[in-house]
Amino acid sequence: MAKAGFTLGELADALQAELEGDPGRVVTGVAPLDAAGPDQISFLIDPRYRDAALASRAGAFLAPAGVGDLPGPTLHCATPQQALIDLVLLFHPRTPFRAGVDKTAVVAADATVDPTAAVGPLAVVEGRAVIGPGARLHALVYVGPGVQIGEGTVLYPHVTLREGVRVGRRVVIHAGAVLGADGFGFAFDGSAHRKVPQVGGVVIEDDVEIGANTTIDRATFGDTIVRRGTKIDNLVQIGHNVEIGEHSLLVAQAGVSGSSRLGRGVVLAGQVGVADHVTLGDGVVAGAQAGIPSNVEAGTRVLGTPARPVAQARRIMVAEARLPELLQRVRALERRLEQLAVRLDADAGKGGERG
Amino acid sequence: MAKAGFTLGELADALQAELEGDPGRVVTGVAPLDAAGPDQISFLIDPRYRDAALASRAGAFLAPAGVGDLPGPTLHCATPQQALIDLVLLFHPRTPFRAGVDKTAVVAADATVDPTAAVGPLAVVEGRAVIGPGARLHALVYVGPGVQIGEGTVLYPHVTLREGVRVGRRVVIHAGAVLGADGFGFAFDGSAHRKVPQVGGVVIEDDVEIGANTTIDRATFGDTIVRRGTKIDNLVQIGHNVEIGEHSLLVAQAGVSGSSRLGRGVVLAGQVGVADHVTLGDGVVAGAQAGIPSNVEAGTRVLGTPARPVAQARRIMVAEARLPELLQRVRALERRLEQLAVRLDADAGKGGERG
Amino acid sequence: MAKAGFTLGELADALQAELEGDPGRVVTGVAPLDAAGPDQISFLIDPRYRDAALASRAGAFLAPAGVGDLPGPTLHCATPQQALIDLVLLFHPRTPFRAGVDKTAVVAADATVDPTAAVGPLAVVEGRAVIGPGARLHALVYVGPGVQIGEGTVLYPHVTLREGVRVGRRVVIHAGAVLGADGFGFAFDGSAHRKVPQVGGVVIEDDVEIGANTTIDRATFGDTIVRRGTKIDNLVQIGHNVEIGEHSLLVAQAGVSGSSRLGRGVVLAGQVGVADHVTLGDGVVAGAQAGIPSNVEAGTRVLGTPARPVAQARRIMVAEARLPELLQRVRALERRLEQLAVRLDADAGKGGERG
Repeated sequence: MAKAGFTLGELADALQAELEGDPGRVVTGVAPLDAAGPDQISFLIDPRYRDAALASRAGAFLAPAGVGDLPGPTLHCATPQQALIDLVLLFHPRTPFRAGVDKTAVVAADATVDPTAAVGPLAVVEGRAVIGPGARLHALVYVGPGVQIGEGTVLYPHVTLREGVRVGRRVVIHAGAVLGADGFGFAFDGSAHRKVPQVGGVVIEDDVEIGANTTIDRATFGDTIVRRGTKIDNLVQIGHNVEIGEHSLLVAQAGVSGSSRLGRGVVLAGQVGVADHVTLGDGVVAGAQAGIPSNVEAGTRVLGTPARPVAQARRIMVAEARLPELLQRVRALERRLEQLAVRLDADAGKGGERG
Repeated sequence: MAKAGFTLGELADALQAELEGDPGRVVTGVAPLDAAGPDQISFLIDPRYRDAALASRAGAFLAPAGVGDLPGPTLHCATPQQALIDLVLLFHPRTPFRAGVDKTAVVAADATVDPTAAVGPLAVVEGRAVIGPGARLHALVYVGPGVQIGEGTVLYPHVTLREGVRVGRRVVIHAGAVLGADGFGFAFDGSAHRKVPQVGGVVIEDDVEIGANTTIDRATFGDTIVRRGTKIDNLVQIGHNVEIGEHSLLVAQAGVSGSSRLGRGVVLAGQVGVADHVTLGDGVVAGAQAGIPSNVEAGTRVLGTPARPVAQARRIMVAEARLPELLQRVRALERRLEQLAVRLDADAGKGGERG
Repeated sequence: MAKAGFTLGELADALQAELEGDPGRVVTGVAPLDAAGPDQISFLIDPRYRDAALASRAGAFLAPAGVGDLPGPTLHCATPQQALIDLVLLFHPRTPFRAGVDKTAVVAADATVDPTAAVGPLAVVEGRAVIGPGARLHALVYVGPGVQIGEGTVLYPHVTLREGVRVGRRVVIHAGAVLGADGFGFAFDGSAHRKVPQVGGVVIEDDVEIGANTTIDRATFGDTIVRRGTKIDNLVQIGHNVEIGEHSLLVAQAGVSGSSRLGRGVVLAGQVGVADHVTLGDGVVAGAQAGIPSNVEAGTRVLGTPARPVAQARRIMVAEARLPELLQRVRALERRLEQLAVRLDADAGKGGERG
């Protein structure tokens, strides 16, 4: 759906950029440095790619203010990363969609679908659900009884929102994600694990994004909460009664166990695990595969299993590599020391002879 | 769907509890200590939360026998954890459902659906499938050819049961779970990986629970088996020909590779991995993120990668933290020893002079 | 759907095997050594199972050339692993299916479905999608706008292929897999994470297999690519702009972060994590749960977090087990050395007396 093209002058205006070069030149798309052709504009955000920019066949460039001498007209921007987003959106505006309920969708009589919302083919919307203005439910989504979906929210195919889940505005939920499955709570009664009823809910605040096949369980009581602006990748597990603070990032395959609380601006890299009933303060950053068994103070960067402050974890990792050698050195020390002791005894013997 | 309310006398009868306080007092719901209001009953199961109980605004309490002086009428129970489950079920009885096949479901002519079972909107039931009494298939589930589903079993939306999968009674399968996908079996023929046909099945015994987006592969030959009473969390992977013993617990994102066998009452914490062809004895407990490469004897608690008995693993983790310091100490020892040796040589030289 | 039976003579012809025994004997199925009955043929591929073969009740055996003295007629094959695949396929030929679009499927008017393809109940095929000859779309799959699906490809229930995904020939995509969800790309603008538009695609080449509930994200620009012959297990995460080389194997719950490149014949065992912008050379093999932070040269086997060459990683793991003991030995050395030094000083004192 790329637009026919823009002149560099139009782009400079739209991006509030300073143009070095011909404002009448037309570009028809945006592409990375190695893929862009003469009709396309490319971008140099990270100065490490300067060589690639010099070799690029792109017809024009987006670059930070002060970065010059590129092989084509250049749009200089104060915040090039943000300008690149704007640039891509100009060429790839959000796909328009037709409001209304597809005739093959199954919508309960007592559900409320805003007339500006869209419900795709073979989607199911159960009783008392409320679908807000401009929301878009793709094909084959499941929206359970009493679910609330805010304005402009998008549900991709095969999403499941179980009963009572409440989703804010401008939320994006990718295909196959499941919100509101029962929390994993059982109590052994001496002969079997008895299920603890999970009667709480799930609350997703505004501007959250949730990845494909990610699972967010309902609370035992109260709500599992993901606060506004937080972005969650694919195949992430969020246990019951967890609360994730605002503007956090949870990368793919991370998992947060029941009742844990993440502060604002927390980052969990891929495959990180957080134990249950753990609190991570604001701004905690956990490196890939970290295993976090206990509370972490705000602002701390951690790594490893068990997770430790990153400087310490790195020192341990470096030292580990020398561990086999260390064993040998200790063995050598022991032998050496034994020899010295024997020698000292012998000398002492001689000394004794002297006595 | 909370009920209007119960008197404390009614609850004492239902829970076989001893009531300390007014039996006529009415409570309309159950909530945790910090959230309960004067119309609600709360609970103190774990004595560590006594301070929270003393500060609670709850109108009544459920507590162990012998725990007194709470700020409201108290139901004393011998097994408070089990009584809490009963209490919650009184206020939140299982949602009733209407038996019958939704008119938008697609059920093969030669499938058998018990008249007391329910098949939701846009569910698909293929030929020769058998759906038992009181089973509930939510919207958009897929039940493959010849699948058998026992009495009272619940399939949440977007569950996939491939051909021939057999599911017992009172099983709960959460949204998006996939049972019966092909096991991961290939044989390299010198130029490509050739698929080993996966002609076995999957058997899920009674009272099993399977989490959202969990995958349980069919066997190459024979069956992949999950024995009765076992509870599996979200995003868990069970490979082909695995057998999981009774009353085990597999926490989120754990994975069990092909042909491994877990005994009865095994616990795998979150993100644990079990290699293929491994046997874990009855009652083995593996801590979060453990990687289990080989057999583990019954009753052993393990931790770490590679998994080791928990006491040893903890000693290693503690020692690891001191590893960088240890390197320095060994370096110091080596220097010190060298100095001593030099001194000893010098002394020996003097001794020589004496000779 | 097992066939009625074959004579051993027929099987010898079909498998180009040398038969030791009665060519007229009929077998009706194939089963493992411990499960096979007198009407079934079993197999001995790995010589370690010879005892099981000797104890087997199987009516006939498939075995490597030169392996004799089994308790029944034996088909000797040069490549028994491949012959076993052929044998199983003889008894379990691929299920035939009826071409055509199920009347409950929702196929856009401008989609193209080859007349020899099958589209199952309640599947959705969006506009401009192209479904190749002999392709099979099971019930409830979602095929987005402009998606291309090659000849003989199979999509199991609840698969999601988002807009523009291109899938080659003879590809198998298991239930619940999601291809083409947005890559996880955000840029913090000082107050919120702004979404980087993901306008690229996903390309799956011929003969790839993709596991249940696996997720493969679309590229930011260009394509995320899985090259031909590669097999991917369940619950695997492939980030945006990743390229996986030919004939690679990615075992369950492995994850590859954005923009990383895997060579040809790479193997990632279960729960392995690969960081972003990392290159793994041809033939790299990563052991279970390895965490790979940086480039790995072709042909290297790695293990551990951070991943190290397997011999080194194993030495470290062995040494780790001795780390607590090592701490004690170093403490003993320090004490011992201190005693020696004291003694040497004392001796020197005595020596002084001598002076």
